[in-house]
Amino acid sequence: MIVVMHKDSSEAELQHVVDRVQEMGLETVVLRGTNRTVIAAIGDKRNVDKESLLAAPGVENVVPILAPYKIASRDAKPESTEVPIDSTTLGGQRVGVIAGPCTVEDRTMLLETAHAVKEAGAVALRGGAYKPRTNPYDFQGLGEQGLEYLAEAAEQTGLSVVTEVLGCEHVPVVAKYADVLQIGTRNAQNFQLLSAVGEQRKPVLLKRGMSAKLDEFLLAAEYILSRGNHQVILCERGIRTFEDHTRNTLSLSAVPELKSRTHLPVIADPSHGTGRRHLVNAMSRAAVAAGADGLLIEVHPDPERAVTDGAQSLNCQEFEALMKELKTVAKAIGREM
Amino acid sequence: MIVVMHKDSSEAELQHVVDRVQEMGLETVVLRGTNRTVIAAIGDKRNVDKESLLAAPGVENVVPILAPYKIASRDAKPESTEVPIDSTTLGGQRVGVIAGPCTVEDRTMLLETAHAVKEAGAVALRGGAYKPRTNPYDFQGLGEQGLEYLAEAAEQTGLSVVTEVLGCEHVPVVAKYADVLQIGTRNAQNFQLLSAVGEQRKPVLLKRGMSAKLDEFLLAAEYILSRGNHQVILCERGIRTFEDHTRNTLSLSAVPELKSRTHLPVIADPSHGTGRRHLVNAMSRAAVAAGADGLLIEVHPDPERAVTDGAQSLNCQEFEALMKELKTVAKAIGREM
Amino acid sequence: MIVVMHKDSSEAELQHVVDRVQEMGLETVVLRGTNRTVIAAIGDKRNVDKESLLAAPGVENVVPILAPYKIASRDAKPESTEVPIDSTTLGGQRVGVIAGPCTVEDRTMLLETAHAVKEAGAVALRGGAYKPRTNPYDFQGLGEQGLEYLAEAAEQTGLSVVTEVLGCEHVPVVAKYADVLQIGTRNAQNFQLLSAVGEQRKPVLLKRGMSAKLDEFLLAAEYILSRGNHQVILCERGIRTFEDHTRNTLSLSAVPELKSRTHLPVIADPSHGTGRRHLVNAMSRAAVAAGADGLLIEVHPDPERAVTDGAQSLNCQEFEALMKELKTVAKAIGREM
Amino acid sequence: MIVVMHKDSSEAELQHVVDRVQEMGLETVVLRGTNRTVIAAIGDKRNVDKESLLAAPGVENVVPILAPYKIASRDAKPESTEVPIDSTTLGGQRVGVIAGPCTVEDRTMLLETAHAVKEAGAVALRGGAYKPRTNPYDFQGLGEQGLEYLAEAAEQTGLSVVTEVLGCEHVPVVAKYADVLQIGTRNAQNFQLLSAVGEQRKPVLLKRGMSAKLDEFLLAAEYILSRGNHQVILCERGIRTFEDHTRNTLSLSAVPELKSRTHLPVIADPSHGTGRRHLVNAMSRAAVAAGADGLLIEVHPDPERAVTDGAQSLNCQEFEALMKELKTVAKAIGREM
Repeated sequence: MIVVMHKDSSEAELQHVVDRVQEMGLETVVLRGTNRTVIAAIGDKRNVDKESLLAAPGVENVVPILAPYKIASRDAKPESTEVPIDSTTLGGQRVGVIAGPCTVEDRTMLLETAHAVKEAGAVALRGGAYKPRTNPYDFQGLGEQGLEYLAEAAEQTGLSVVTEVLGCEHVPVVAKYADVLQIGTRNAQNFQLLSAVGEQRKPVLLKRGMSAKLDEFLLAAEYILSRGNHQVILCERGIRTFEDHTRNTLSLSAVPELKSRTHLPVIADPSHGTGRRHLVNAMSRAAVAAGADGLLIEVHPDPERAVTDGAQSLNCQEFEALMKELKTVAKAIGREM
Repeated sequence: MIVVMHKDSSEAELQHVVDRVQEMGLETVVLRGTNRTVIAAIGDKRNVDKESLLAAPGVENVVPILAPYKIASRDAKPESTEVPIDSTTLGGQRVGVIAGPCTVEDRTMLLETAHAVKEAGAVALRGGAYKPRTNPYDFQGLGEQGLEYLAEAAEQTGLSVVTEVLGCEHVPVVAKYADVLQIGTRNAQNFQLLSAVGEQRKPVLLKRGMSAKLDEFLLAAEYILSRGNHQVILCERGIRTFEDHTRNTLSLSAVPELKSRTHLPVIADPSHGTGRRHLVNAMSRAAVAAGADGLLIEVHPDPERAVTDGAQSLNCQEFEALMKELKTVAKAIGREM
Repeated sequence: MIVVMHKDSSEAELQHVVDRVQEMGLETVVLRGTNRTVIAAIGDKRNVDKESLLAAPGVENVVPILAPYKIASRDAKPESTEVPIDSTTLGGQRVGVIAGPCTVEDRTMLLETAHAVKEAGAVALRGGAYKPRTNPYDFQGLGEQGLEYLAEAAEQTGLSVVTEVLGCEHVPVVAKYADVLQIGTRNAQNFQLLSAVGEQRKPVLLKRGMSAKLDEFLLAAEYILSRGNHQVILCERGIRTFEDHTRNTLSLSAVPELKSRTHLPVIADPSHGTGRRHLVNAMSRAAVAAGADGLLIEVHPDPERAVTDGAQSLNCQEFEALMKELKTVAKAIGREM
Repeated sequence: MIVVMHKDSSEAELQHVVDRVQEMGLETVVLRGTNRTVIAAIGDKRNVDKESLLAAPGVENVVPILAPYKIASRDAKPESTEVPIDSTTLGGQRVGVIAGPCTVEDRTMLLETAHAVKEAGAVALRGGAYKPRTNPYDFQGLGEQGLEYLAEAAEQTGLSVVTEVLGCEHVPVVAKYADVLQIGTRNAQNFQLLSAVGEQRKPVLLKRGMSAKLDEFLLAAEYILSRGNHQVILCERGIRTFEDHTRNTLSLSAVPELKSRTHLPVIADPSHGTGRRHLVNAMSRAAVAAGADGLLIEVHPDPERAVTDGAQSLNCQEFEALMKELKTVAKAIGREM
């Protein structure tokens, strides 16, 4: 941490800050520059609110040096983590595609979709049984009935099941049926829920909050990791910006940047990341080319009749065609699919 | 809802969309313009995913006309809602200030702060017993012990207590001690929690999500209202933008805009809305001048030793001085404080 | 400047960076922390691209300490600059309102507006003769004819004239007729134009770029100041964010923050800052309460027939009423209007 | 255009708006819905300020239906435009890479870079002779001397030259030496300059403004096209968002979206789009996979000594390696490089 003093700060103010930093358990070095005096604080204490120093008289700015996450960092674990899914892993050589409908609407549509995505080469089936809906009057999902359909589809196809968990009270039932628990973007800083999925042992697919900086995203992962669950998959799913041609702005640079900061697998969600089906193919190819370890893609047998997210869902034929495209892109960059 | 067809869409595609809209229970009027044909869909069905029409062949765009919230709207209730707090209300003639520390750290500091803010003219005491922390290694709050201190402070001073609830499982205990339950920005789309506080009958202070558009903010309120709890206070607390001179961008235009769209009281949080104590006074005055029904301000006896948010907390003397400023501004625009 | 080395960087890499920093004419201090080694670079060289150090092997991050602007800084000139306008100044005790139509449409409407805003208490008349239009097919302004009308209105009313200059080639003609040259948000980083208005001696009203951080805004001012023109008025006019209830997000915290960083006067534009006339009054009051030295407000005798920006213009009666409100707010915070 | 009336608007207000719309030369259809009455305005008048209707009593909202640009639209010209560059074109089957230093620093470094990028397969040389610098104290470029070096490098290598033009007064000299004139992001709404490059006949590479929505980007292109210059290349170069791990957020979904809206070629700039050299390779591959017609990449023989943008420049060996990667990705999606 570097504390920058105001140009007009006094020696007493400087000494006071030095004392405060030392109280925090850190060593100090005072550097007197041409225009500013700064205090370098040395040591690794992350459990103090360093920003509170901004309240000290004479302080102009406080600049952190260390990343705030630990277990998630490649500093702590240089080799990549691979999370088992289906008969493969996410985070290794193979690029895995997780596909399925936004919402489990009924048994028939789910089984139809599951078989279709399996045949096209997906490694896991996604589908929502509990749905976070912005509007309280919208359909909220089938609940446990939906989980049962997912389990049946998994058994028939051999696919793993990825499904969202909305609240702590649902963790046991979702963990009973699902292979991977998904935390959605609206819960990306629901720390109670992050802790709860950290306490159980199924892998967790964690979506980036729609306004999360990468440090915040990795701290959300750290909540899960610090409870002992080390199987976390990170998912870039678009951020909120001023753009209006998409629902979100899929920020693909997050993929290589996260891969450099953390050992965890990183996937992308071009369906939510654009919200527009005519953009899903291009952004899926781009995500693979950028180095994503996998994709999360919405597929529905009849998108214009989908209860949710029809605007961004591919139909089964479109998904099959996309998978062929993606295999050639994966191969071009030396990976398999 | 207006459905815009592509320039090159066929008559069959047009007819197909007309049929789909009518299936949704809406009436249709087809308008053939110079460059585009549009379908106006008339009626009030909010429980269908109209965006799914974007998946229909030949559709270029779908434009909603009606606001998605109902109970929260001034259309539904033209007169302003006043929420009782202390011996006054929020949402009426008086501007109410809620003040206190970010975190309840111990009994002494809390009582000291409570007495100070009471004397300065605050109507309620804020303070966190359960803290949402971005970093899992940071202090997470005193829990029920903190709630007890808050209740004691309330009893001594006569102030109402506003405190945050982080998870559904804490709703009963927080409702037992607090007068107003706060939902923080990170839970602004935690629909489980919104429903839970909607089921109980204490007033709710709902913070805007840091990337929430106003429609989304009002839909979050609608979750609470639709469960039967009509005492909701909205709080603008800053949004996430590219700006780096503050922690968030306090968007004060949200105050008058919300006041025109909804009958609910609207307050502002200049502490989180800036994250910088040297900006709190100016933005507090501005919020009152913009028509806010109240303010939420962080006050700590010794900000530079605050466990959390010291960088944005005023000390007790500064708060007292600010209250004097605010009273003149409130009076200037014809309100009391 | 602080250079942070990668955890795994070598001694040779460290030495190489130390050499590079010294080549730049800066002194170095090496600090070896628990997890990272950092190099503090001491001295005031602003004419080198320090970010290029990010390209050196082993470097993780480069953190600047000094603000990049000089003449604009309060470090350089602690006392506030007052820019003369009409019979008063902007930047002193008095809050000055600049009002008028977006575009000078014809002589009659301009004179009508000028007399109305003068009577209501404005200190200057605004109006565009050269208009920056996003759409090439939109009306581009009356040009010099418009400037002549402005000059006539100034002569009749005694108001100063503020009008926009779009290109270097127009600087002489605009400077001939206007008292203050305005640089619009779309030209906020048109460095040719900034230099050109810096070469002449009429005051300049500089709008913040719609995606400019404050450092960038002040560096734009520095372009003008460094050419010898020290009469620069800064104007917060709204930034681009994800919000959709306004055309821009008026970021009023920029007002007190700029006042603390620079000695230049700071005003606000609630008309462009919201783009919605029903929000102009509230945000005008808020801007004054936040400490703005002045306001820029669009007034049109018949907004719904305005050629440009009718959606955000007040009519003359509304403006007169607003001025009464603003006077009481200004008085409440100890200023005059 | 659709005009939405307030719930409580009167018949007289409705009739007034109908009259206003008809005055604008548009036909009207009134639709009375369950909760709102809307007026559909039919016709193609783009030279009126429709937003001014927001100022009419009783109007709640105005929703445009038609895109505001004409010549740039695929509606107007369904087949793709190919812009000749070097011995190939941008916008056809081949993906073209434009590479070179940010700034032309001296003759030796430029020639070295030019030969290196030519050998690696670039189709054009980029390099700045006139530099837009945020900081007035930074190096502003070699001017015409730099253009001469570029012309010499072009002659030696056979590469086309792409270089930025900063002001109207430089258009003739830049057009004399360069094959393609670049308009930078800071001038993306400098309408004087857009008009000036529209008047001459060399192709123009137009960068997206850092806060431009796609409609605004295409309207900037329309300025050039409407002056008779139909050779415009669009370049996504990153937008400004809250993200801090990159200088800008490269929004690759803009590539396929622009390709669907316009016939003009679309390229991407992963150097400015990230600002970080360790991300350039991944984002270059992603851009090609997303369907970009070309790339703009900064290459410098010694990035850590670059006068500008060293943090995002590749060295010559890195660029050569990247080109090999890109060729396999281009081939995988059925294109050549």
